[in-house]
Amino acid sequence: MLKPVTSFANPTIKRLRSLHDKKGRRAEGLFLAEGLRVVAEAVAAGWAPRALLLTADAAVHPLGRSAARMCLETGGEALEVPRELLAKVCAKDNPAGAAAAFAIPDTSLTRVDVRSSPVWIAAEKLKDPGNLGTMLRTADATGAGGLILVDQSCDPWSVEAVRASMGAVFTRAVAQAGWDEFRRWASGAQLVGAVVGADTIDYQAVRYAAPTVLLMGNEQSGLPGAYAAACDERVTIPMAGKADSLNVAVAAAVLLYEVVNQRRRADPPDRHQPS
Amino acid sequence: MLKPVTSFANPTIKRLRSLHDKKGRRAEGLFLAEGLRVVAEAVAAGWAPRALLLTADAAVHPLGRSAARMCLETGGEALEVPRELLAKVCAKDNPAGAAAAFAIPDTSLTRVDVRSSPVWIAAEKLKDPGNLGTMLRTADATGAGGLILVDQSCDPWSVEAVRASMGAVFTRAVAQAGWDEFRRWASGAQLVGAVVGADTIDYQAVRYAAPTVLLMGNEQSGLPGAYAAACDERVTIPMAGKADSLNVAVAAAVLLYEVVNQRRRADPPDRHQPS
Repeated sequence: MLKPVTSFANPTIKRLRSLHDKKGRRAEGLFLAEGLRVVAEAVAAGWAPRALLLTADAAVHPLGRSAARMCLETGGEALEVPRELLAKVCAKDNPAGAAAAFAIPDTSLTRVDVRSSPVWIAAEKLKDPGNLGTMLRTADATGAGGLILVDQSCDPWSVEAVRASMGAVFTRAVAQAGWDEFRRWASGAQLVGAVVGADTIDYQAVRYAAPTVLLMGNEQSGLPGAYAAACDERVTIPMAGKADSLNVAVAAAVLLYEVVNQRRRADPPDRHQPS
Repeated sequence: MLKPVTSFANPTIKRLRSLHDKKGRRAEGLFLAEGLRVVAEAVAAGWAPRALLLTADAAVHPLGRSAARMCLETGGEALEVPRELLAKVCAKDNPAGAAAAFAIPDTSLTRVDVRSSPVWIAAEKLKDPGNLGTMLRTADATGAGGLILVDQSCDPWSVEAVRASMGAVFTRAVAQAGWDEFRRWASGAQLVGAVVGADTIDYQAVRYAAPTVLLMGNEQSGLPGAYAAACDERVTIPMAGKADSLNVAVAAAVLLYEVVNQRRRADPPDRHQPS
């Protein structure tokens, strides 16, 4: 049974609200996800909510009921809350029925096998959590294995990153590693650096050979020269404009779709044919 | 000469700070852009700053000097300010030397000729200013004419939208129109709707015939059925994952690069060949 809670002072509510800050996430070992659809996707992917908040409507919805069941069966706490309380926990006007806290997983790169997916995305010193989440979302859409964060990046478990991922944080691998460890990991793959400038090859001129790891540079400074030099290929996306760059999540998507499209051409599935 | 200002209470500083709110922008008829490079690009594109703030370093930089000259010659106010004051005006830790206010331009669609560019991006009820700015940035990189905002969208002159555009707001057309007016405008072009779901064609199966107008739907609800039905083509980007959508700025970029790539194949420029 769901426990009804209406007070902002409830200790579980307070703990969930603390997950907006990195300090709170570290103290609790938890991160926050919002929205009934996203929470249900997490549950379907095997993630057990440690704490779950549902509005009255969501509590009687089949997705809400199965999330609550999974939460209670695994020793979590499931609360029914008014809409305003949920909005407060999410710091968002339209919190879409649910919020849940999940345990922050181990993000060691040793847990990820580069051969388990034909394509990966990696990003060096990524700064913006919205870009991080968007890259995960695109990884999901393109069947990429996940996102490898190289060197010090923004927190993949921030509310903003999780929100932008639209649930992909639950279905894609997320790993963190320093450059040397990443380089060793990627040695079993074709490592492709996204680079702006001279001594690069057009991104459509490369034949992407699975497994491919696409490495994106930091939003401001791009990929360091030594990192670019260590890549098997250095590719560039042609740009017509004055501002000679693309948003990093946009550039990652253009590259991921080129990899996908090359493989579609090599092995065209029926459902991709025009009707 | 630049007027040195150090006080938060200075009336120009107060006016610039008010541009973070839509109400302030409407009252002043101005919007705020940040960063010496972006301000210099605006000036190079013929935009006169109505007010300009420069740090001491930026004031002696060639880009800062020419921005100040343009500002003063056109009757604007140019101030030299401490870094902390600039950071306060930009609400940003690293404001990169400069901020400037520019007059909000006329965004009537009647001012835009669809035949003046081979490709355009349009977005229906766009909600997120970061998406808006990122779409303009990609429009710049792909040589698209600009962004047409259909029906009620977020404000293209918000600090967040301008920031995400990375200067593209100064080099691309930005227009706003209701559906009927937009439909008439686009009748001189191939109108392509981005749609998820049935009765669509793979985005790579369409031959894009200039001028092409790519129409994206709202972040939550996608393109309304009637709008999709009015398009000449309804295209979809294949997706492998569970979350059957892409971020709208990502989807726009994937489509824009398909248009660009088809035209590159038809007429390959030397600089796009691999080295």
